[in-house]
Amino acid sequence: MPAAAEPSKLMVRLNRDRIVIADVVPQLDAGRYPIKRLVGDTVTVQATIFREGTAILRAVVKYRREEDTSWCEVPMTCINPGLSRWSGTFPVEHVGVYVYNIEAWTDRFATWQRDLAKKAGLIHTPADPHAPAATTAAPPDLTNELKEGVARLKWTLKYASASAQPTIQAAMDGMLQAPTQEAAVQVAVAEELGQVVTAADPRKDAEWFERMLRVTVDPVLAGCGAWYELFPRSQSPEPGRHGTLRDVIRRLPELAELGFDVLYLPPIHPIGRSHRKGKNNAPTAGPDDVGSPWAIGNEHGGHDAIEPALGTFSDFDALIAAAREHGIAIALDFAIQCSPDHPYVQQHPTWFRRRADGSIQYAENPPKKYQDIYPLDFESADWAAMWQEWRRVLELWIAHGVRIFRVDNPHTKPVGFWEWLIGEIKQAHPDVVFLSEAFTAPPMMQNLAKLGFSQSYTYFTWRNTKNELTEYLTELTQTEVAEYFRPNFFANTPDILHEYLQKGGKPAFQVRLVLAATLSPSYGIYSGFEFYENQPVRPGSEEYLNSEKYELKHRNEAAPDTLKPMIRTLNQLRRQHAALQRLRGLTFHTTTNPNLLCYSRSTPDGSDRVLVVVNLDPKSPHDGMVELDLPALGLEPNASYYVHDKLSGDVWPWQGARNYVRLDPARQVAHVFVIERPNLNLLAETAPTAIA
Amino acid sequence: MPAAAEPSKLMVRLNRDRIVIADVVPQLDAGRYPIKRLVGDTVTVQATIFREGTAILRAVVKYRREEDTSWCEVPMTCINPGLSRWSGTFPVEHVGVYVYNIEAWTDRFATWQRDLAKKAGLIHTPADPHAPAATTAAPPDLTNELKEGVARLKWTLKYASASAQPTIQAAMDGMLQAPTQEAAVQVAVAEELGQVVTAADPRKDAEWFERMLRVTVDPVLAGCGAWYELFPRSQSPEPGRHGTLRDVIRRLPELAELGFDVLYLPPIHPIGRSHRKGKNNAPTAGPDDVGSPWAIGNEHGGHDAIEPALGTFSDFDALIAAAREHGIAIALDFAIQCSPDHPYVQQHPTWFRRRADGSIQYAENPPKKYQDIYPLDFESADWAAMWQEWRRVLELWIAHGVRIFRVDNPHTKPVGFWEWLIGEIKQAHPDVVFLSEAFTAPPMMQNLAKLGFSQSYTYFTWRNTKNELTEYLTELTQTEVAEYFRPNFFANTPDILHEYLQKGGKPAFQVRLVLAATLSPSYGIYSGFEFYENQPVRPGSEEYLNSEKYELKHRNEAAPDTLKPMIRTLNQLRRQHAALQRLRGLTFHTTTNPNLLCYSRSTPDGSDRVLVVVNLDPKSPHDGMVELDLPALGLEPNASYYVHDKLSGDVWPWQGARNYVRLDPARQVAHVFVIERPNLNLLAETAPTAIA
Repeated sequence: MPAAAEPSKLMVRLNRDRIVIADVVPQLDAGRYPIKRLVGDTVTVQATIFREGTAILRAVVKYRREEDTSWCEVPMTCINPGLSRWSGTFPVEHVGVYVYNIEAWTDRFATWQRDLAKKAGLIHTPADPHAPAATTAAPPDLTNELKEGVARLKWTLKYASASAQPTIQAAMDGMLQAPTQEAAVQVAVAEELGQVVTAADPRKDAEWFERMLRVTVDPVLAGCGAWYELFPRSQSPEPGRHGTLRDVIRRLPELAELGFDVLYLPPIHPIGRSHRKGKNNAPTAGPDDVGSPWAIGNEHGGHDAIEPALGTFSDFDALIAAAREHGIAIALDFAIQCSPDHPYVQQHPTWFRRRADGSIQYAENPPKKYQDIYPLDFESADWAAMWQEWRRVLELWIAHGVRIFRVDNPHTKPVGFWEWLIGEIKQAHPDVVFLSEAFTAPPMMQNLAKLGFSQSYTYFTWRNTKNELTEYLTELTQTEVAEYFRPNFFANTPDILHEYLQKGGKPAFQVRLVLAATLSPSYGIYSGFEFYENQPVRPGSEEYLNSEKYELKHRNEAAPDTLKPMIRTLNQLRRQHAALQRLRGLTFHTTTNPNLLCYSRSTPDGSDRVLVVVNLDPKSPHDGMVELDLPALGLEPNASYYVHDKLSGDVWPWQGARNYVRLDPARQVAHVFVIERPNLNLLAETAPTAIA
Repeated sequence: MPAAAEPSKLMVRLNRDRIVIADVVPQLDAGRYPIKRLVGDTVTVQATIFREGTAILRAVVKYRREEDTSWCEVPMTCINPGLSRWSGTFPVEHVGVYVYNIEAWTDRFATWQRDLAKKAGLIHTPADPHAPAATTAAPPDLTNELKEGVARLKWTLKYASASAQPTIQAAMDGMLQAPTQEAAVQVAVAEELGQVVTAADPRKDAEWFERMLRVTVDPVLAGCGAWYELFPRSQSPEPGRHGTLRDVIRRLPELAELGFDVLYLPPIHPIGRSHRKGKNNAPTAGPDDVGSPWAIGNEHGGHDAIEPALGTFSDFDALIAAAREHGIAIALDFAIQCSPDHPYVQQHPTWFRRRADGSIQYAENPPKKYQDIYPLDFESADWAAMWQEWRRVLELWIAHGVRIFRVDNPHTKPVGFWEWLIGEIKQAHPDVVFLSEAFTAPPMMQNLAKLGFSQSYTYFTWRNTKNELTEYLTELTQTEVAEYFRPNFFANTPDILHEYLQKGGKPAFQVRLVLAATLSPSYGIYSGFEFYENQPVRPGSEEYLNSEKYELKHRNEAAPDTLKPMIRTLNQLRRQHAALQRLRGLTFHTTTNPNLLCYSRSTPDGSDRVLVVVNLDPKSPHDGMVELDLPALGLEPNASYYVHDKLSGDVWPWQGARNYVRLDPARQVAHVFVIERPNLNLLAETAPTAIA
């Protein structure tokens, strides 16, 4: 008999690789990027797990906070034996980064129990045509099997907890002392014994998935919140006077009462004077023109300063504090660009690209020219100092209490820079939120989300028809994209007044508000939306006439007939209904009219459901049947139930999948229904009216 | 001005990561396993490639044989600008392993050319509603731009080849000496200049995909061949006499003439005597019973020996040589299991698992028992010596000229063992082919293919209806599975006589033969199929009556009325038509009758096309319309063409997509059409007959 050969390292590794753990989801680019969750969410991990032969496997999801050393685990269950597919779910209860993996091992005692039960005739396997015909009815001799079981139990005892040992010892005794083989087998195959031994298993052949996977856990506002955007300089109650940060404080009670969670301010820094843009983007500014807040920097400072006309850092701190008292978070704009008067231009001339004639290259996207803005040159030899400076700028505002940054045009700066900057900031401040304002091709938008942006502007403003909305929302909520790309559905922005709003009248604003607020957990409006402002600078343009980007604007906040009541109602509903607070759980339901869009949102456990029907045509009434996907709503076929419209207050008795709907935009553009069961007392008081 | 900060390693890495190369296909489990190709094939690599901003990118596929040090490259082209999707194709001309990757870089000169052309008004971009209204019609001053272009050309000169330098120098001179700015711009934007500068580009910011990817390039037989399986001991021309390897040599001319490429022999090793199985798998053998060839090993030796009744190594070498002369490759069975009489049982007792009573554990899958077979214990402490021994066994047969192994039940041995064994063998002998005989759940079958098996048995025998075949073939040919899982469609095996064959009469055999031979580039039959052998051991069993696994069998090779003519024709067609030689290029076409299956195969360039219509019901005639996917066949709408049935010789004039077909199994179960255009001279001679 030859001595054991010395195996190579490869052999040793492959000899250990007996259990295959493959096709693990969620997993982005082979673990290159983390998936994302909001604090309090769960992560369901699925994998294909198998080994040779027929032995029984066990698997768990292992997870821990990145900074912890010890692992937690939750059991996985086999959800599809034919495809060896397993699933397990773990909770993420803290903001920060979690690491997760899978451990699988062979449960030899359970395998032995099963095989013993089969041999003893206690489990009947389907007749196998390949098997030789049964030759004897004599009970099999299971002496060897029972001895092997006792030996395995004895081995397991070493690893068992003190509380488990008596059960195992009792089973060994029982098997050895049983009066008959049959009695010994009964002791051996007991389910409770199996559970105790499985728990004590030292998992000698345990295998892990080959790559550690990560999940970034963000504060809820990273994925769920109602945003309001305003220009502080337009907030003066006095027409013509430059508004201040103190004026913004005055606005907070109303915004809080309307249910907004985030107040986003365009840049509040000093504004450049060279090539300052005039009203309506005129190439030359008049003496009183205030310029674009995105042309950052003048003699008063740059990204680390506040425009003196708006106030001081002390005013800013007061704003942050007041907002916090109203339950509102302040989001600042972070735009990496400089006016020609920005201090960096003198202090760091190498951060800008020089032309052949020695001038600095202004921003352009031929044939467009932005003479009031210098882009930063990320190919500067001094790039590292520049990167560090941007971190310093963010840290400064974070020190003043800012936790949300809306990042201007991130797709025009290198992806590696963002990955570094956001990584550094979130390592120190995991509760900071970055909103990506990238309107470009899907791969770049998605990559920015993968590399660290918490949430993203979307194509929502350009998705207006039933097909467009269904297709886009399906991509955002039903594909891998949902693991990392958190949409923020702005219904308008200072740059985008869509033709639908320009031409659709007030109902168009109502439609887009309902869609934004109920299709995406994060949504926003830019001020003016609530007053139905809809004049473009010229036909065919998405720019506003007299855009606030280039001038002060005064609005009558007390005006009657605004969208405010609808905003208040929708924001209240969003706070009351968990179904509206997460991206998952969206189902589109069939309707017989292409102008009627019907969808529902529900929580993973189905306990909360909101059903929405919208007439997408702001000009005409439309009616038709909706064909509800009843299982998606947790309803049985032919169920009787009431739909309670939280916009109008109406309650309708519905039955089964097919129900009639009519929406006249002159009266009501949408139903936002909560589904109630007939036995609710509420319904006894409200006499339901049949709709058709 | 501060000194440049010292960047961290992370910063340096991320500063380099400016170009994103993502979603690279083909790629198996993040590059954990190689994809597969046959020698002479191509690999089309696709990726999403982008960077910040609007600069023009270039990309190439880099590839090399694993043992080479220098890279080859082929250009990639952007096939979907909206999704930044690129594609490039490289050839694999040698058996072995190739490594591939992607290199992408910024083409700054091309970007400069494009921007210059835009500024000069030579490229008109669609009007942008965000752009300020045009203020002047005066031609722009492009002095800076032209100077920057000259500077870039001067820089490029350093990297340009001697042949490229004059073009670049001439352009610089032309730009500097041009009489007008307009003339200088014309010189600068010349397309040929762009090509020369692109070719000379030193690719300073070149980025590679983060993982090296591999492709295993196999000999053609690994993915394409007609297999014939026979038991050598049944090949005696004399009934009752034990056949020999010399008898197999006698069979070669006919098998070659029938067009078979591979002759697969069940194990030819000495057969155990202990617990030898009798006829029809009887638990006890009679004195003359020959036993199962899979119960390997007796006093004459084990896996490295030849059953004396079959002959000697000298006979075996003669068989290999004779087969080679007939263009036939011999495939041996590789079954890792031992009879109780195998030499290993004495020499390596620790390779087998002992029971509590000291006996060796025989093979069982409760309640099934295989007392004539001992499995090897892969958990033996002496596992490494056992692994090495199996390599020695394979090397022995390889030294005798064997290049194909059909591996018995690989799914009951550890996956890591196979990855090591096949890896070792293929490193030394990249032309060796392994066929996996795993009938188990898809994840294990697919994993065996990924880890190294060249081709695989499939569920084909159990896929008989139109839906079953369409769904299964779609999975095999249209999904990622096609990158690594090469099916071998055996129409029958010694273990599998499907009910369809038992009950369908001769037409059933014809149907399954046509399907196997035209749906998969590799297919096979086990002898007896051509004689329509269809008696099961008992009703409901897939086992043959008087199975050759347990006894000698004598067949009258000269019998009339066999499948041989059809086999000959199909194998000829398979050799003539490249479309039948690769897995890709399968299209299913709609038919109006659920019994009629219609599909075509075509080469990637569309130059070769075979169209098949099969009546899957062996009992009744069926007719209906086929609705051809004309683009998949390279035919225009309303094209007139002839379909030439290579089984019957008939030619039919067809037009457009919709054509009538009738197949009566009593006469013909299938059409195997070649599509011919009306202007072929051939057709002038053969008067076409309308079918309906």
